[in-house]
Amino acid sequence: MVADLINSIQDNELLRDNERIDDLEVNGFRIIQNPFYFCFGMDAVLLANFANIKPGSEVIDLGTGTGIVPLLLAAKKKGSSWTGIEIQEEMVEMAQRSVQLNKDLIEGELKILCGDIKNIREMYPPAKFNAVTSNPPYMKENSGLKNPSDNKYISRHEVMVNLEEVISAASYLLKTNGSFTMVHRPSRLPEIMELMTRYRLEPKRLQLVQPAADKAANMVLIEGIKEAGKECKILPTLNVYKENGEYTEELLAYYGKGK
Amino acid sequence: MVADLINSIQDNELLRDNERIDDLEVNGFRIIQNPFYFCFGMDAVLLANFANIKPGSEVIDLGTGTGIVPLLLAAKKKGSSWTGIEIQEEMVEMAQRSVQLNKDLIEGELKILCGDIKNIREMYPPAKFNAVTSNPPYMKENSGLKNPSDNKYISRHEVMVNLEEVISAASYLLKTNGSFTMVHRPSRLPEIMELMTRYRLEPKRLQLVQPAADKAANMVLIEGIKEAGKECKILPTLNVYKENGEYTEELLAYYGKGK
Repeated sequence: MVADLINSIQDNELLRDNERIDDLEVNGFRIIQNPFYFCFGMDAVLLANFANIKPGSEVIDLGTGTGIVPLLLAAKKKGSSWTGIEIQEEMVEMAQRSVQLNKDLIEGELKILCGDIKNIREMYPPAKFNAVTSNPPYMKENSGLKNPSDNKYISRHEVMVNLEEVISAASYLLKTNGSFTMVHRPSRLPEIMELMTRYRLEPKRLQLVQPAADKAANMVLIEGIKEAGKECKILPTLNVYKENGEYTEELLAYYGKGK
Repeated sequence: MVADLINSIQDNELLRDNERIDDLEVNGFRIIQNPFYFCFGMDAVLLANFANIKPGSEVIDLGTGTGIVPLLLAAKKKGSSWTGIEIQEEMVEMAQRSVQLNKDLIEGELKILCGDIKNIREMYPPAKFNAVTSNPPYMKENSGLKNPSDNKYISRHEVMVNLEEVISAASYLLKTNGSFTMVHRPSRLPEIMELMTRYRLEPKRLQLVQPAADKAANMVLIEGIKEAGKECKILPTLNVYKENGEYTEELLAYYGKGK
């Protein structure tokens, strides 16, 4: 009781104005979020589930935001060290406090660094990592409502970094046979495949995610392997909701609530 | 009665050894097939349904085989003239007899020509067609059991023509904003998208076809528009069978047997 109370007080000391602590429902991991910033969505959860990361892997997440992807990967023990790179200082600082919040649960090293994906070559030597993940901004810079100073706008639009820069950085960071795993909009799939092929991240595994069986996909999960041969495995399309409006079993399992 | 009998005798005069007449279940159209040659599959039926071809379009089908795709397009009145190009003389001759068989039903002109897709530039000026369709050989030349003299082997493997040659020919034949519609194996989707992009046939519409909801896709339908802007529409994944083993409603509709 007293220990719980002390823990709770310590946790709250990690919180700033407007922030809250959310349970990730995986091995007790939690995350700090601020509704005025970009909050993680189902895409990040699906990405962490889809990612096929071997034990012992050194993983880097490009544009990590709240740090959700490295936190989930650490919670699932996918890899042994995780680095999240984020350009927005206030997000980095908040994500670092999320790492603090989970410090007794993380097996391995998890760090969040402030950095610009475009300058990744100045931060790391080539071929340093076994796996790269990314849930990058989906929208072209000139699409949608524009407010470039807005934190959420930066997380959603290609203001600070575009698709080619993310893929180019991933290719630079990966060892041969290393994996790049990304979630993105299906409408950009041709561009994604063309760029991954151009940067020698051969698309090897792909899954469409549909809101329901009769609805068009609104997310695509894709894995590229550096320098691999051609031949892509397509997984069965994942539906989020059943006809009756409930989550499908697959989805519940991803949120740690399956049978 | 007598007229039917005469028709039936005339039809049979169009048949050679081992051949049979199959009903296409669309507006009375029929086709001649020979089980010793490559017979059309569900891929061709799905391709003809997926193809978005405007009235008045001049259409060319590359590697037409039995002539199934132009026959189905003519039956569905998708376009006003259809040309099928096929390299195997015995298939061309048989497909021409299928055209004869349907001559009173075809509204417009349907012709089957013997030709090599690789030499298409010698057969036609550039930008002559509004729409190109193709159900090309799916397999790499060096994959599977090899018997290059075998008619079925030529229809299934990239012996006579490969994916890049088909896409390059399609791009050459199409007017700006013309459509290229193809069915292929999903495992080759990255290559398909990279080549279509390279040959300025921007992928604009895509549908995966799965045997069932929990099975990985074994076909992909894709449409590219010549010189179009980026942004691909993904249709809901099509399932062939329901859980109970019956065809799904969508599939039955494609075979002219829907509700």
